[in-house]
Amino acid sequence: MRAVDLIRKKRDGQELTSEEIAFLVKGYSEGQIPDYQMAAWAMAVYYQGMTARETADLTLAMAGSGDTIDLGSIHGIKVDKHSTGGVGDKTTVVLGPLVAACGVPVAKMSGRGLGHTGGTIDKLEAISGFSVELGKEQFFRQVNEIGLAVVGQSGNMTPADKKLYALRDVTATVDSIPLIASSVMSKKIAAGADAIVLDVKTGSGAFMKTLEDSIRLAKAMVDIGTQVGRRTVAVISDMDQPLGHAIGNALEIQEAVATLRGEGPTDLEEVCLILASHMLILGGKAADEEEAHTMLTAQIKNGEAMEKLKQMVSAQGGNTEQIDHPELLPTAELKVDVKATGSGFVESIQAEEIGIAAMMLGAGRETKDSVIDLAAGVELLKKIGDPVEVGETLAVLHFNPSHEAGRVEAERRILNAYGISGTKVPTRPLVFALVTPDGVKRF
Amino acid sequence: MRAVDLIRKKRDGQELTSEEIAFLVKGYSEGQIPDYQMAAWAMAVYYQGMTARETADLTLAMAGSGDTIDLGSIHGIKVDKHSTGGVGDKTTVVLGPLVAACGVPVAKMSGRGLGHTGGTIDKLEAISGFSVELGKEQFFRQVNEIGLAVVGQSGNMTPADKKLYALRDVTATVDSIPLIASSVMSKKIAAGADAIVLDVKTGSGAFMKTLEDSIRLAKAMVDIGTQVGRRTVAVISDMDQPLGHAIGNALEIQEAVATLRGEGPTDLEEVCLILASHMLILGGKAADEEEAHTMLTAQIKNGEAMEKLKQMVSAQGGNTEQIDHPELLPTAELKVDVKATGSGFVESIQAEEIGIAAMMLGAGRETKDSVIDLAAGVELLKKIGDPVEVGETLAVLHFNPSHEAGRVEAERRILNAYGISGTKVPTRPLVFALVTPDGVKRF
Repeated sequence: MRAVDLIRKKRDGQELTSEEIAFLVKGYSEGQIPDYQMAAWAMAVYYQGMTARETADLTLAMAGSGDTIDLGSIHGIKVDKHSTGGVGDKTTVVLGPLVAACGVPVAKMSGRGLGHTGGTIDKLEAISGFSVELGKEQFFRQVNEIGLAVVGQSGNMTPADKKLYALRDVTATVDSIPLIASSVMSKKIAAGADAIVLDVKTGSGAFMKTLEDSIRLAKAMVDIGTQVGRRTVAVISDMDQPLGHAIGNALEIQEAVATLRGEGPTDLEEVCLILASHMLILGGKAADEEEAHTMLTAQIKNGEAMEKLKQMVSAQGGNTEQIDHPELLPTAELKVDVKATGSGFVESIQAEEIGIAAMMLGAGRETKDSVIDLAAGVELLKKIGDPVEVGETLAVLHFNPSHEAGRVEAERRILNAYGISGTKVPTRPLVFALVTPDGVKRF
Repeated sequence: MRAVDLIRKKRDGQELTSEEIAFLVKGYSEGQIPDYQMAAWAMAVYYQGMTARETADLTLAMAGSGDTIDLGSIHGIKVDKHSTGGVGDKTTVVLGPLVAACGVPVAKMSGRGLGHTGGTIDKLEAISGFSVELGKEQFFRQVNEIGLAVVGQSGNMTPADKKLYALRDVTATVDSIPLIASSVMSKKIAAGADAIVLDVKTGSGAFMKTLEDSIRLAKAMVDIGTQVGRRTVAVISDMDQPLGHAIGNALEIQEAVATLRGEGPTDLEEVCLILASHMLILGGKAADEEEAHTMLTAQIKNGEAMEKLKQMVSAQGGNTEQIDHPELLPTAELKVDVKATGSGFVESIQAEEIGIAAMMLGAGRETKDSVIDLAAGVELLKKIGDPVEVGETLAVLHFNPSHEAGRVEAERRILNAYGISGTKVPTRPLVFALVTPDGVKRF
């Protein structure tokens, strides 16, 4: 078998066999197939796509390219959740305790962030003492004991995906649905999930800007799940503006805690409840969304969800005082209001611009080696639909003097990110569609 | 400027600017842009194509990436000729003397062959003592004195093209018309030609299998010529069977000599006269094809074309005795007849298979380091349209005992290459079209 022949085959629109895909992934992962051949192949895939079978084969080959986690020693159906990423997305911090409180074990591996704001792992580190590095045994034991653990990826998981992703990033082959889908799913499968709930963001702040593209990506991932025997559903949720009001690590933990108390922003709460419902259904704890919804809101009301978060924080060495009193979380020395320059109704908030503003204040990593300022971020006081008067505060910048240099540009970006309309703005739905192995249900 | 943005731009079907193309070629040639980015770009070009302007820019950037030859010290209009390659193509050996005898200076740089049979340079080396390595001064002086010199490429010409070609070869991006066209034309332009006659082969034995693809390639090259101010015309000629009867280095020199004497096979003679006519026209020595044809046949009849070949052989240290008496050229120890297994009419001869058979007997290079056996080759006694009886000789294998091992497979390939029909076969034209800056003229 020669790589050049497989590139040509894909280039000409033919389907590669399972053996051929395994040959490519193994050869690339082990260094026999050079970057330039894989780059040409990825570009051919960009144009020709891949069949569901090919995509599943690619996913399995990448999942198997490194360490895999066997969650067999954890009791129950392990349901993982993945978001395609957005600004202000702190759903994992809410969902984990919420779902665990309902009896679905959550053994979650999460990533750090590059760009806008930190990843879930970075956010949790805003809690002083919280350790995201647990040994495998401790990780399993904690999930069996309290039903919940969130740790950073350790070991050498999906090295083929990492290598291919880095290559795609510099060869303009990132935006290929089968390649995105297999990258996401390979990590979930290597992490040992029995079932997967996907949160596919759509809108200006999402990777997929249009609903149709988001549905296509969701279908590709659900198809992979079906092909490899992991029950998978995808929720298409809005990312036309940041989720919630807080962007920045400690600020987001604060907002997540509020949500677990039943005092969070409606959009964040609603998205969390929908995602959590599907986790309960896949985890065999609820028959349908209605039942799940009732169970979940009960856990918020009776304080069990909050309690579960505290159990996890405590088990991972974190300071639970900061959960009971979120004002004890790191706070920034400086707070600067960004004021509206016009009046009307908020029509749009470019999430990506808000993310970059937060990063400039220290909340995210510009390069792999940047150090995150956990206290920094942006607080949005106005969201889409809100009326606004000239001079009213749209958002608050939170930053420390070390990031004073980013302030002017952050402010400029936030003002640019806000679109103000003269007329009332119709409300936009939070969830657009549900994609299951049975098909697409639009709302 | 970042390579990844230029890949994306091409991927999305946009036209790159001259500066962007120069950036890619320079960066790649100098090693700042890695193979994997160029491979992704080449695959994007495979799908999206390039405009005439982009193709011309790529050509000029590659032509200027290394040494260039200034033929300014040679008097007259220097007309170069290039063939897209085929089996049994010895036209340069015929054309050079023929055109030079009519007063058009021929300062030709030619390549060695990889694959089937040798290149022109290899063929000329079948003449004992013939040197293809002349210093620049000697090269120019010889052309000014006798009007003709054929040498190997020396120095560091078009390194960007060499590097890109090698990359395309292993990334399934060879068959892209703008990339092929710019590769060919960059070499011609670096070699200093004022005008270029292209021999674009079409048919089963050619790189371009269909007439339409061949015309597309020809147009792309003629367009480049127009854009960069070099008068260029392309003749689309048949390569549905090998050209002439001889395949193999010394055998082809013999056939070329016979053609210069007016005793060559009709197909070879006709193709040579057409190509030579266009060289005379572009060289300003003839007004039209008819006038050119008369001039050329006169030079064959009066012996001046033969005389010109001998002058070149002599000037480059070769043994002219072998020209006067071609039986003195290297001959193989063994000659084996390949006999027809059926009766009828020759319907097809897969040129590529004949080429591979010749290579197996030692006439070509299987790898860069193979040593060519100049005497080896295949002589075709039957060509398309010829009647054939079972047991009659189709072809003769010429080889030395060192290549005995290749004989059975060579014979098998030749028998396979011949298609025999029960009914009479219509004759196929030798030249299908002429492509000039004014358009396509089909015959």
